Amino acid sequence: MRAEKIRKYRPYPTVDLPDRAWPGRTITTAPAWCSVDLRDGNQALIQPMNLDEKLEMFQLLLDIGFKEIEVGFPAAAKVEYDFLRLLIEERRIPEGVMPQVLTQAREHLIRRTFDSIAGARAAVVHLYNSTSTLQREVVFRKGKKEIIDLAVYGARLVQQQARDSDVQVHYEYSPESFTGTELDYALEICEAVLDVWQPTQENPVIINLPATVEMSTPNVYADRIEWFCRHLKDRGRVIMSLHAHNDRGEAVAATELALMAGADRVEGTLFGNGERTGNVDILTLALNMATQGVDPGLDFSDINHVIEVYERCTRLQVPPRHPYAGELVYTAFSGSHQDAINKGMTAHEHSESGLWAVPYLPVDPQDLGRTYESIIRINSQSGKGGAAYIMEREFGFRLPKDMHPEFGRIVQAATDASGLELSPAMLYSIFEQNYLSVRNAATGYCLKAFEVLKRHIDHSEKDSLAEIAAVLAWGGKERRIQAEGNGPLDAFCSALHENLHLDFTLHSYHEHALTRGSSSKAVSYIEITAGDGSSYWGAAVHSDIIVASIKALLSAINRSRAAEAGEEA
Amino acid sequence: MRAEKIRKYRPYPTVDLPDRAWPGRTITTAPAWCSVDLRDGNQALIQPMNLDEKLEMFQLLLDIGFKEIEVGFPAAAKVEYDFLRLLIEERRIPEGVMPQVLTQAREHLIRRTFDSIAGARAAVVHLYNSTSTLQREVVFRKGKKEIIDLAVYGARLVQQQARDSDVQVHYEYSPESFTGTELDYALEICEAVLDVWQPTQENPVIINLPATVEMSTPNVYADRIEWFCRHLKDRGRVIMSLHAHNDRGEAVAATELALMAGADRVEGTLFGNGERTGNVDILTLALNMATQGVDPGLDFSDINHVIEVYERCTRLQVPPRHPYAGELVYTAFSGSHQDAINKGMTAHEHSESGLWAVPYLPVDPQDLGRTYESIIRINSQSGKGGAAYIMEREFGFRLPKDMHPEFGRIVQAATDASGLELSPAMLYSIFEQNYLSVRNAATGYCLKAFEVLKRHIDHSEKDSLAEIAAVLAWGGKERRIQAEGNGPLDAFCSALHENLHLDFTLHSYHEHALTRGSSSKAVSYIEITAGDGSSYWGAAVHSDIIVASIKALLSAINRSRAAEAGEEA
Repeated sequence: MRAEKIRKYRPYPTVDLPDRAWPGRTITTAPAWCSVDLRDGNQALIQPMNLDEKLEMFQLLLDIGFKEIEVGFPAAAKVEYDFLRLLIEERRIPEGVMPQVLTQAREHLIRRTFDSIAGARAAVVHLYNSTSTLQREVVFRKGKKEIIDLAVYGARLVQQQARDSDVQVHYEYSPESFTGTELDYALEICEAVLDVWQPTQENPVIINLPATVEMSTPNVYADRIEWFCRHLKDRGRVIMSLHAHNDRGEAVAATELALMAGADRVEGTLFGNGERTGNVDILTLALNMATQGVDPGLDFSDINHVIEVYERCTRLQVPPRHPYAGELVYTAFSGSHQDAINKGMTAHEHSESGLWAVPYLPVDPQDLGRTYESIIRINSQSGKGGAAYIMEREFGFRLPKDMHPEFGRIVQAATDASGLELSPAMLYSIFEQNYLSVRNAATGYCLKAFEVLKRHIDHSEKDSLAEIAAVLAWGGKERRIQAEGNGPLDAFCSALHENLHLDFTLHSYHEHALTRGSSSKAVSYIEITAGDGSSYWGAAVHSDIIVASIKALLSAINRSRAAEAGEEA
Repeated sequence: MRAEKIRKYRPYPTVDLPDRAWPGRTITTAPAWCSVDLRDGNQALIQPMNLDEKLEMFQLLLDIGFKEIEVGFPAAAKVEYDFLRLLIEERRIPEGVMPQVLTQAREHLIRRTFDSIAGARAAVVHLYNSTSTLQREVVFRKGKKEIIDLAVYGARLVQQQARDSDVQVHYEYSPESFTGTELDYALEICEAVLDVWQPTQENPVIINLPATVEMSTPNVYADRIEWFCRHLKDRGRVIMSLHAHNDRGEAVAATELALMAGADRVEGTLFGNGERTGNVDILTLALNMATQGVDPGLDFSDINHVIEVYERCTRLQVPPRHPYAGELVYTAFSGSHQDAINKGMTAHEHSESGLWAVPYLPVDPQDLGRTYESIIRINSQSGKGGAAYIMEREFGFRLPKDMHPEFGRIVQAATDASGLELSPAMLYSIFEQNYLSVRNAATGYCLKAFEVLKRHIDHSEKDSLAEIAAVLAWGGKERRIQAEGNGPLDAFCSALHENLHLDFTLHSYHEHALTRGSSSKAVSYIEITAGDGSSYWGAAVHSDIIVASIKALLSAINRSRAAEAGEEA
């Protein structure tokens, strides 16, 4: 925005509350939750939910554990009226769950609202009128007193209707556009409504203070809530409710700080659907609490199901970076992150406390029904650790740590060249081509036959002896080699030295059973130092552990010969 | 998440800071901004940017006004090294703009980092190592002292290289995973690095305190920053920098509160791209400031261009509810919101102060290069005000206020029936079918000819007189009618009463020029009260204002006849 435009905007007023207590508090218990997905969420959709979608969303909200669900503005639209009637008449509202209905302070709307809840066990009747300076002046052209009179008039009508109704009615009042309302005036109008409704400790009234538009840093919303809680006469008989929108991208923060400031209840939606920038995201709020060891009382243990139903019903997508639910939030492409996650996961598996502590992952994806599958993905930003992690997780290859840099360089060259993400299958293919196959039949030795001619194993291991024979093929010819050593691999090394005059030293040897894939196979990894001092790794898979080691050695030698010949690694 | 899983998680430690000052402050000046789009953002993409995309992103960041741009980790990947060399060698970095390069505390990486910046006028060399308890124990298996030694070692190497370099080097140090690090230990390690670098007021050092993982409510991050600022020996010689991630959806809030707590600088990305849940979103931060009258020093006056380049280069979508930039954030579907916005916009046009104050819109979309076009959209949640707003904005029809309820009901019936959003063209079509056409040729009167036979206009208006004749067609027949009145419309009414015995009263009449579309046309709106007391509106467009009024009256009469015949409105 250009500087001259900025003069159009004024700072939001702060609250004089030097002894505010909320910054020293933490959230230790969950609030009461009210979903407004079917009202605030639905009214903000390009294509509102149809009846089937509303029913499916309602069931999802029940499954998650919501006990209060605002189902709409039944007096304003026939479809909302019909939906609520269907819920009531088909007895789809379980015991302990209350529908909530919104109404303005107008007689015919209030009457129709009470018609809509007839037959329900209980319901929250949510009365609102807009109280902000701007709306009073520009939209309603009414003074402060007239707006209070309107609220009191509405409160009385609601009370009369409630007295005539068989439904157990809970009252809620919202000074809509609270964030645009003078704080003392908001208090005054709420007190006036409470004077009508006369709450008791047994039958408290919900006072909902919406950030209809988010207008300030979240601490100011918290200050307003704390100020309000302190000044309200009937604080003990009021359920203080929050309803934050996200115009500044801070609705989650505003709600959390306002809970610390004394609020008891939160209205919001799944994934923050709602007017404009959305309502506060209840899923994020709840899981933020869970990661602090506070039970939110909502069950998101199958987050993929929640996403699937939400996306289908709202025709909105959960963004890939949405906290907890986004496609990419359990993914690390960066090498250092992959390495740390890898080590952290291993440490967690062996941890006695069971406490979750893995770098870069504030939550265990499994607790939300996500798998570890997508945590580490490979592209040109990834390091050796990521490739090794995928090779182990997907294919059971536990590459020796000293082999990671070499394989990492091969993978990096591939991702640098393509610029694309490597799928696990593509990664395996690179591993296979570079280690498990003979890439160049002209220079690469291929094992045609292998035989242990003699074998003597001494318990002291001092006098162990093996003699082997093997047939190798390369460049169209075949050759039989034979030698002795203190074991088959040693004997094979000797044969290569003596018969073929190859110059290398066997530097290290690792093997493990391949627990995935063909279960009876073994994989060997061998590192050699070539004549020029360079190091090369080889790997091979075989059902016979000895053959696997022989082939892994050939793999390393073939790689060194290819490098000498200037072939691409 | 299930309750038994929640036991895996512990609350994040708070800071004992009862005299914290930040909650009483506001943000009154912009911080220094550093974009990490090309580093933290790029490394988190499924498909990182290619060279052309990086160049385009770099240019976008320059256009927005960033003076510090982290371009990558040039020692870690050849593509990043090559990109920086290209920027420097092709002199693409304007004066006053500094590239920033990231490096770990390892000698070969630091040397290569300095190779990468050779030839630049100035650069920020950003050294980091991970300091969190978890990373020390699980990833590095090093004690506190060894980790400090590593940082000091890196700081010395950077300093040596900087002394040998012609580049004007600014130092930055990050205790990575600061939010997972004991606060006093983070201070200790930063002090140790500062002891090496010896900042002065002229050459301050950047100390960057990342929320590598967001682990708490944002007030705790602010507390940590305030504590750190208070305890740092060299506070006056340090630029205190923030780098927040968004794991709890609170990175914007954490950054704002931490700025209030004393920080000077912010690292972040456009639209919050970055590892996992993303980095802090600089666009939202900057525009949050602008809406409080604080010039952020970044120019987002063409937000659509920013979105377009960002989406193309990152292959990510800006979510529809993203603050300021999302497709839906300047849109209201709900009737009461539409009505309030409509009134607010009108009031704003006539406002003398020029201050922005429109309900539900914290920012003027035009200041970001967005139009008002999409503010109000029509679906089954919309009210009469929205439909009237679209008719005026898109087609120039200023429907009389008393006509809004009737047209609103017609539109509501259409959206209830389809469940879909109505485009402006569809809305116009509904208006046209209901008002401008003769829907039923059997009962609807169609004006075939119209003539003013006599016209006398008296200046006192007492003795004005008109005589008209008209030919109407309906149900396959035609009839000529003729009568006198004090004006042509009055005369036509009389003709309808006298010749056709129609029972109605003309209730109100409105007309205006149609400024859009055919510029010389007029539109008339007429309300009649039918014989049974019901009210009906009609409308018509004609280049002759008298003919428009005659046709509008017929439109209203035809609507009343259709209603009597039980036809759908």
